Amino acid sequence: MYYAEIRVMYKKGVLDPQGQAVKGALHHLGFSKVNDVSIGRVIFLKLEAQSKEEAQKTVREMCESLLANPVIEDFTYTIMEEEK
Amino acid sequence: MYYAEIRVMYKKGVLDPQGQAVKGALHHLGFSKVNDVSIGRVIFLKLEAQSKEEAQKTVREMCESLLANPVIEDFTYTIMEEEK
Repeated sequence: MYYAEIRVMYKKGVLDPQGQAVKGALHHLGFSKVNDVSIGRVIFLKLEAQSKEEAQKTVREMCESLLANPVIEDFTYTIMEEEK
Repeated sequence: MYYAEIRVMYKKGVLDPQGQAVKGALHHLGFSKVNDVSIGRVIFLKLEAQSKEEAQKTVREMCESLLANPVIEDFTYTIMEEEK
């Protein structure tokens, strides 16, 4: 059994309205020394696989087919094996 | 200058409809060996502070006042200093 942590973020240059809104709200609350706020999704999941390579392949396929929009988003992931 | 990576997830036991919907969609796409899908937000930001401790204090305050809903969400964060 493997655990995957997947992070999906906007590609550089893509407008991040949520990030800008949060930055504005933080400034409004007095946190004026904050900059470059960007917001994405983090996905945790458990996955049965024969090997770490198979788990990585499956995670990449899931990201490319559903979890990330390849036009405007990039994804990164880390995979850990469950301790026996 | 410091970089903060903040992760905001539902507390254990709180229903995660988005996670369940994604799990169902992944199963529908043939990724049947996936379980326990949970989805949260990841926030990256830059922050001016005199010390790492001050940066941590500010990040905690921002999470408690805006970035996370303390009733249903937990937050974790990592802080790195910008290389000079």
